[in-house]
Amino acid sequence: MYFDYASTTPTDPEVIKVMDPYLWEKFGNPSSPHGFGREAKKALEDAREVLAKFIGAKSEEIVFTSGGTESNNSAVLGVAQSLKPKGNHIIVSPIDHHSVLKPIEFLEKDGFRVTYAGVDKDGVVDVKDLQKSITDQTILIAMIHASNEIGTIQPIAQIGALAKANGISFLVDAVQTIGHLPVKVDELKVDLLSLSGHKFYGPKGIGALYIRKGTKVTRYLMGGDQEQSRRASTQNVPGAVGLAKAIELCQKNMNDEIQKQSQWRNKIIKTVNDRVPNSRLNGHPTNRLPNNVHFSFDKVQGEALLMSLDIAGIAASMGSACTSGAMEPSHVLRAIGLSDELAFGSLRVSLGRWTTDEQVDYFLEQLPKSVEKLRI
Amino acid sequence: MYFDYASTTPTDPEVIKVMDPYLWEKFGNPSSPHGFGREAKKALEDAREVLAKFIGAKSEEIVFTSGGTESNNSAVLGVAQSLKPKGNHIIVSPIDHHSVLKPIEFLEKDGFRVTYAGVDKDGVVDVKDLQKSITDQTILIAMIHASNEIGTIQPIAQIGALAKANGISFLVDAVQTIGHLPVKVDELKVDLLSLSGHKFYGPKGIGALYIRKGTKVTRYLMGGDQEQSRRASTQNVPGAVGLAKAIELCQKNMNDEIQKQSQWRNKIIKTVNDRVPNSRLNGHPTNRLPNNVHFSFDKVQGEALLMSLDIAGIAASMGSACTSGAMEPSHVLRAIGLSDELAFGSLRVSLGRWTTDEQVDYFLEQLPKSVEKLRI
Repeated sequence: MYFDYASTTPTDPEVIKVMDPYLWEKFGNPSSPHGFGREAKKALEDAREVLAKFIGAKSEEIVFTSGGTESNNSAVLGVAQSLKPKGNHIIVSPIDHHSVLKPIEFLEKDGFRVTYAGVDKDGVVDVKDLQKSITDQTILIAMIHASNEIGTIQPIAQIGALAKANGISFLVDAVQTIGHLPVKVDELKVDLLSLSGHKFYGPKGIGALYIRKGTKVTRYLMGGDQEQSRRASTQNVPGAVGLAKAIELCQKNMNDEIQKQSQWRNKIIKTVNDRVPNSRLNGHPTNRLPNNVHFSFDKVQGEALLMSLDIAGIAASMGSACTSGAMEPSHVLRAIGLSDELAFGSLRVSLGRWTTDEQVDYFLEQLPKSVEKLRI
Repeated sequence: MYFDYASTTPTDPEVIKVMDPYLWEKFGNPSSPHGFGREAKKALEDAREVLAKFIGAKSEEIVFTSGGTESNNSAVLGVAQSLKPKGNHIIVSPIDHHSVLKPIEFLEKDGFRVTYAGVDKDGVVDVKDLQKSITDQTILIAMIHASNEIGTIQPIAQIGALAKANGISFLVDAVQTIGHLPVKVDELKVDLLSLSGHKFYGPKGIGALYIRKGTKVTRYLMGGDQEQSRRASTQNVPGAVGLAKAIELCQKNMNDEIQKQSQWRNKIIKTVNDRVPNSRLNGHPTNRLPNNVHFSFDKVQGEALLMSLDIAGIAASMGSACTSGAMEPSHVLRAIGLSDELAFGSLRVSLGRWTTDEQVDYFLEQLPKSVEKLRI
């Protein structure tokens, strides 16, 4: 039983079906001018159009990448590189994903100044605090749309308005929200937006970066002239076709899925609060991803809890898969003020398209037993 | 009829078959500690082992990437970044791929000194000339194994020996040779080697970088701790599994394919030389990729020739798909001394696994007609 959809999702069988022809019969390189190439190019551009429409963008504002990490890296480093002459100050939340934070730390060593915006105990960014930190040197604000660990959704449109009013480029890491919540670039007032196919039932190895027309970003991968010379590398046509199909399926199912998953989420939160003593819900109680539950349990080793659940047939997570095995407590849980001890007693449960009532009920039976058994 | 295997290859149906389960049933994130994750991790590490063995490397020396461009970019920039304190001189061939040359040009603007090694009229690098250009500031030699345009194979082992003797990191872009020719990292004395799945009947969107143990390379994609902290981003497990299967198939078929394709190649070269007046074979006459033929035709527009062949059902190329549509003549053809006029009259024909005698004969019937018709 899979309760780790936030880490990765199965590729929807309907997605696999539309990808397959682009591996064999329609395998051309979209940069080739002959028939095979033109066929691939058309599929690629159709996929771009689907994604663009979904987020309310224009096709030419979409660059396909290898995933969320490349999108975030290339946005952060690309903006910094191209706006260096204008200023050297960056604002970011302390609970952003490492694929945003690490390149920013890299820039910090290179002479950039970084402000980490304050967050409250639920992980919500303090917009007034953020506003105060803006200077005439600020060139970039980067903000995760919803936390991949604790699920809290940020006031993106408010921050976007601030960025816009001050002529600052605004990057939103929407890896956790695309396909799961409505996302429109104009409503959110974002200039750059990252997403990753495998987080919404598309394939691994494909993602995209939205770049608002006029936003200055130095190119990242250098070589051929693909993606309007904004990203070199032979395009992953089956990946792009699959990503677009995944978007279409998410669009079709979104209202249903939000409703179903929020109900399960709320049921899990209520039941755990009721039945597991000394537990703490992390993240905002209501303004959070519909499919995310994140708890810390006092005097429980998170890894032991995961193992115990794994033995019971339940696949869950401590937080982010990207840093699992790390000896450090999560930077997100530290930022919201959790003690290291409590941080190490964490459990993230994330729901998805193939979650069932029975699975949720089974989980809710097992969890209290496992916690009780493991409490020291 | 596809005569453009150097641009991209169809994914072998056997490759597609082994990838499919990793999209749906075995879809886990290899960084997750639970059962789904462990299953994915095992598949990823098995794939790494297959690739490592094939090139005579150790598993831990392989980093999966999104393709050849990322491999080349990350090798060039990673070596430069980490060896900057040691020196600032780079040697590269003028006929390397743009995914090597462009990051080197980027470094040149940043204060690095670059020597472009001399090549003769067949595109073979002058090793003595290269040797003379080595200084105590030289930190990197980058050399394409075989030209993606004109097919010439370079004396890699000789250059590798020079690099080794002088303590210089040696990057080989083997995107065109892996799967098509035997490649062993110790025989070639390389420290870094790039490859791309879709060039040898594997999927698009996956590649790898071999990094010899002890070679200093700053990490490129920053974020999570994947690939032993050498490349962040959720690993593309189906891609890696497919790449490994493609390697196995190439290994199995290699001798046969080399023999068959060389015969066709030689037949095409001989027939064109005999039947098309004022044609010039580009690249070394014998020491070239078994599947590559590259001609320039005097007083013929290459684009018109491609179109004429396309109408006859033949998909070929002018040179590199990555720069097709470019208004500049190929940097490779310029480097071997071709006039711009002759460069614009070029045709690359590349053969592959599903080429047949009948296709080659049909091509050899059509080509002379098309050239004759288009000659001005």
